Parts: sequence; C-alpha cells; structure tokens
Amino acid sequence: MRIILASKSPRRKEILETLGICFEIITADTDEHSDQTDPALLVEQLAMQKAQDVQDLLDAQDQLEPNTLIIASDTVVALNGEILGKPHDREDARRMISGLQNTTHHVLSGIAFCYIDAQGNRKGAYTHASTAVHFGPMSDADVELYVNSDEPYDKAGAYAIQGLAGRWITGIEGDYFNVVGLPVNIMCELAKNAFGIDLLRV
Amino acid sequence: MRIILASKSPRRKEILETLGICFEIITADTDEHSDQTDPALLVEQLAMQKAQDVQDLLDAQDQLEPNTLIIASDTVVALNGEILGKPHDREDARRMISGLQNTTHHVLSGIAFCYIDAQGNRKGAYTHASTAVHFGPMSDADVELYVNSDEPYDKAGAYAIQGLAGRWITGIEGDYFNVVGLPVNIMCELAKNAFGIDLLRV
Repeated sequence: MRIILASKSPRRKEILETLGICFEIITADTDEHSDQTDPALLVEQLAMQKAQDVQDLLDAQDQLEPNTLIIASDTVVALNGEILGKPHDREDARRMISGLQNTTHHVLSGIAFCYIDAQGNRKGAYTHASTAVHFGPMSDADVELYVNSDEPYDKAGAYAIQGLAGRWITGIEGDYFNVVGLPVNIMCELAKNAFGIDLLRV
Repeated sequence: MRIILASKSPRRKEILETLGICFEIITADTDEHSDQTDPALLVEQLAMQKAQDVQDLLDAQDQLEPNTLIIASDTVVALNGEILGKPHDREDARRMISGLQNTTHHVLSGIAFCYIDAQGNRKGAYTHASTAVHFGPMSDADVELYVNSDEPYDKAGAYAIQGLAGRWITGIEGDYFNVVGLPVNIMCELAKNAFGIDLLRV
C-alpha cells in the first residue's frame, strides 16, 4: 500500500514516523479560506479538501494507482465557539493569549482519507477529535514576556502546546496528539473501521 | 542564579530548554530502591533524594554556592495503586501492556528543589502531579506487535506516551508534560510559591 501524508507539518511527519508507518509526503495548494464557522465541520472539510486536492493532483499526473491511501489533517483552536487564526501582529497575539489565560479552550483536528482500493474504487472517510486545554492565570508581565518571544507568531491561537506556553497549561482532557496536530488514535480507528486497514501493519 | 537539572533524561532536558531556561546537568548515583508503596509519596521522596544527592555532591566538592537551584524529578506508572517498573523481559512486557489496555492508569511525577539562597540558606520544596491516561482496547495481535517492537523495554510501565503506544491512547486528563516526565506548570508554580523564583526570568 502506498501511503501519502498530505501535510508539510514536521510534527505530523514525526508522529507518523513514530508509529513506524512508511509514507511519502505530497501536498497540494489547498485554498484554506472557508465561510464555515463551526470548528468541527471546518476541520473535517479542510482535511477532506487537502486529501482530495492531492488525489486530484496525482490523478492529473496519471499517477493515481490502486492501493493508495492519502491522509490529511487540519487543526484549529476554538475559544467559546470562535475560531482563532494566526495572530496578525503583536497586539493581536496579546489579545489572543490574554483571552486564553485562566480559562479553557478546545483544539480540534479533522482527519480525512482518500483511499483507492485494490479494485481502483475511490473512497473517502473523515472524522474529528476535540481536546480541552486548560490555561492557568498569566500576569501582565507573563503576557509581555510571551508576546516578546517568537512563540505566538505563525501559530493558530498564538501557541503550540509543546512550546513555551506549556508553562501556563495546567492540564488537558482528550488526545494529546490531537493538540499537536494529528489525532493518532482516531486516525488508526477510522482507517480500520472505514476500510479495514491496520495502519501499523501496512 | 545557577540552575542544575539533576537528571540525564533527554526529554526533561528538552522540556527545560523549550522554556528558555539556562541550566546545566549534574547527576548523582541515587539509590532508587524504596519500600514506599504509595506512588505519590514515592515520586516525591525519590525526586527529593535525587536533588539532595546532587547538593551533597557539590557540597563535598566545595562547589555549593549561594543562588543555586537544583531541580529533580521522578516518574512512575501506577495501575490500581500498584507501581509498574520496567519490564524484566518480553513476558513481563506482555503482562504490563495487557494490563494497561482498555483501562485507565495514572502517571505520577514528583518534582523537588534544593535551593541555596543569596544568604547561603539551604531550602527544599517538593510536590507531585498525577495524570490519568486512558488506553483503548488492544487485540492479541496488537499486543504481539507491540512486545516485538523496541518500545516496551527500559520504560516504566512498558510504554512512553510519545511513542508507538500513542496508537492506543484515547486520551489523558491532566498535565501532558507530567506524562513525559517533567510537570512544567507545577514546577514553575512551586518555584514561585516556595522561593519567589520566576523560572522564566532567571
């Protein structure tokens, strides 16, 4: 089976490697703009779009063969139902991290597959995972220290759980890998349930 | 301030580095044998012992100076109150991972400081964190695949959350960093509350 990860994220690559899965990386330029305001629907739709764009790319190059599985994922941070993007500037980063401190938000990841089975049939499947993340209080000085670091920029919600913000994260509830960007457990379960594929044995 | 991490663990080193803390690593040969059966008391005692052993080592070398903070940690896996050590062999690994699948266990980390303040006074502080880890079901074939990998050996409880076992971990409740081996949030809070030290600004 040919397995393709439709993501340039080094963290997603690292997680798949940890599982001992042999895969290659192929990405397409997916338009990530969407009017969808429901975070769960948004991550499922964008993940599916990313997988389908890679499928279309291979198809156009006449390189889409049977026994191919394309894996894509999309992750957002949601606070009180509002989706947080990447901060535009320092003031935006300050606003975001100030909004996250001393409260609970959710990180949602969609996972989507495009699968071309042994007979050449094209199938799709997707789902999402949501993890609650609890931030403790940050003083004004903490917020300043944080926005003066490199951490908040180029990250949705202005933080990464494995970075400096971990200082203020008091706990999470749910899949840790989901927060990093690839929900391993539901990914493997979905492949098994939708297509009978055991990702650890392909 | 001189900060010393009393641990050889690459993961603990990596976590402290992520926080931007400048530190050096000095370890002593701490006797980790204990009759303590309570996991929370055990990790606190062993963490404190590790910190004190490094303090004694520096003291014996006449290198223990004011403004020194020694940080130590100890992590165990507990299932139904029983502390799981490292598996002795394949059969032991099979028994451990079979016991963890389809249930919830706890990972406990103790964190301990030895602090020599500006006046040369010696102070100590310790605490612990506990995180619940939920494993989904594993088939017999999953267990075989797992014990035939390198993963279970040399790891307490026969797994590491950031490794292959992540495939079957459905979620956690509590501090993720605690499961990796260094509970960042309570470490920083303890330094602040016990000694007035802000670890991000030393």
